[in-house]
Amino acid sequence: MKIAKADNIEAKVVDTEGAEGVVIRLLIHEADGAPNFYMRQFNVAPGGHTPRHTHDWEHEVYVLAGSGTLAGAEADEPIAAGDCIFVPPREPHQFRAAANEELKMLCLIPSTGG
Amino acid sequence: MKIAKADNIEAKVVDTEGAEGVVIRLLIHEADGAPNFYMRQFNVAPGGHTPRHTHDWEHEVYVLAGSGTLAGAEADEPIAAGDCIFVPPREPHQFRAAANEELKMLCLIPSTGG
Repeated sequence: MKIAKADNIEAKVVDTEGAEGVVIRLLIHEADGAPNFYMRQFNVAPGGHTPRHTHDWEHEVYVLAGSGTLAGAEADEPIAAGDCIFVPPREPHQFRAAANEELKMLCLIPSTGG
Repeated sequence: MKIAKADNIEAKVVDTEGAEGVVIRLLIHEADGAPNFYMRQFNVAPGGHTPRHTHDWEHEVYVLAGSGTLAGAEADEPIAAGDCIFVPPREPHQFRAAANEELKMLCLIPSTGG
């Protein structure tokens, strides 16, 4: 059993090309013995964004705080605290924080992903 | 792509033996095409609790609001908003809300569980 204050877990800067103002925390991961999927927390600074990309695995996201935009394959959609989001495998996506507030979200992936 | 206000998703009463004051919402599930794991939201009324049980799959939990107790195999641990929790497979557990506030949490399971 692991119980941890998520915000106290070490944050690492995401330096992937196309990321701007993003840090990641591995809340529940391989090192914790998670066998099937991993829980990560992302904090995106005001005006920042994740890379626009696509991959073979899905995302399951919950927005904890803030607001922003999810740029999908066909449109930009507004997102805000309290939203749950499913990004299917192979769908292009980019998360962008609003200009004036941090976007804080959980983003879970299968252990076979990224 | 699915974007939904989690609190607007239909809540169902958990009527499993041992559950008291618990409702579940299926935020991202089989019906959404989720291939590997499912995101559910549980709201436990003040003084309520989930069943004390054990099973072959893990839980990955994030406490969204409120506080309470996680009764594990060996001890009762306090939990509160902002905590992430990993319950390994086959570990007995019960989530209890504090007497004076609702406990609201995400609880994810592999698609092979549940």
